[in-house]
Amino acid sequence: MTTLDRIIKSFSRLPGIGRKSAARIAYWLLKSDPHIARQLAEQLETLHSSIKKCSVCGNYTELDPCAICGSTNRDRSLICVVENPQDVQTIEETREYDGLYHVLGGAISPMNGIGAEDLSIGKLMQRVSGQSVKEIILATNPTVEGDTTALYLQRMLKERGIAVSRLASGLPVGGDLEYADRMTLARSLKGRTVM
Amino acid sequence: MTTLDRIIKSFSRLPGIGRKSAARIAYWLLKSDPHIARQLAEQLETLHSSIKKCSVCGNYTELDPCAICGSTNRDRSLICVVENPQDVQTIEETREYDGLYHVLGGAISPMNGIGAEDLSIGKLMQRVSGQSVKEIILATNPTVEGDTTALYLQRMLKERGIAVSRLASGLPVGGDLEYADRMTLARSLKGRTVM
Repeated sequence: MTTLDRIIKSFSRLPGIGRKSAARIAYWLLKSDPHIARQLAEQLETLHSSIKKCSVCGNYTELDPCAICGSTNRDRSLICVVENPQDVQTIEETREYDGLYHVLGGAISPMNGIGAEDLSIGKLMQRVSGQSVKEIILATNPTVEGDTTALYLQRMLKERGIAVSRLASGLPVGGDLEYADRMTLARSLKGRTVM
Repeated sequence: MTTLDRIIKSFSRLPGIGRKSAARIAYWLLKSDPHIARQLAEQLETLHSSIKKCSVCGNYTELDPCAICGSTNRDRSLICVVENPQDVQTIEETREYDGLYHVLGGAISPMNGIGAEDLSIGKLMQRVSGQSVKEIILATNPTVEGDTTALYLQRMLKERGIAVSRLASGLPVGGDLEYADRMTLARSLKGRTVM
């Protein structure tokens, strides 16, 4: 196997990149300024050593605690619970939320052997009891696993007298009723809002 | 800008990778064994130093001349002329061709300021005159630029009494007449074959 074949194979292992795209990237890099490949090499080399998990929320960060957990401008009475670190970034991009986060590290999924004990739930309960948290927003995915996890957390949190909410599920903005699946439509009916 | 933002930006600069895919790749790498990121880093680091252009055909190679130019099992009377190195790999994958190649390094494109003098045409003429070449297959892309380049080469080669052929253009196998564009259909009519 040649060097070129090996790098194409490595690229094709990344999520969302097939054999053809991987080859296209490798040839593009070869044709481009060597600086581009070298810069990416350096960034990959230091990726794991420079990025850690925040000891408070579990999000990826270079500083511990992370910028959000350490910020004094955020509403510390609100925690948004998500499955994965990238969900934090996705919610941050809406610029609609100024509370804190908690990254579970996945969702309860008996099919994949992931139980509640594999998620960062104990730490969430600690944060809830120690701090002046008033509301928890459960922002796990609207999937069977995400819903199961949300239900599990809701039961644990309700006992402690904390307000628990769940992200609204329904029709995507700009979507078309005609193309909505049955489940989404059923949820948007059930969760209809008064006008 | 954080380390994570920087690597996402680097990935999104690669062809075919948008902002979302780049973020997905970066988070996936962070979650995966650090070995994966390190291995890719090493391969990128040595990419340009280990891969050169073959001094005969212009294809990317680690050895000079490349494995195809140096092979004794290939038909040396046949040269297939392509625009880019990846075209060599694409044709090799058909396993239908056992001649040699010549990589032009692009196609004549006045719009992009690429003239015949920017392509490896002089070298092709050298190969043609020095060797016992009987046929040249012009495998430039079936685009305006590729066709222009093929026409240009055909005129130069015909003068030297070499057989010149062009890859057939027409309906893709498994395609549907209904979805063929007008130009492709016109070409497939013009180039119809006797049954």
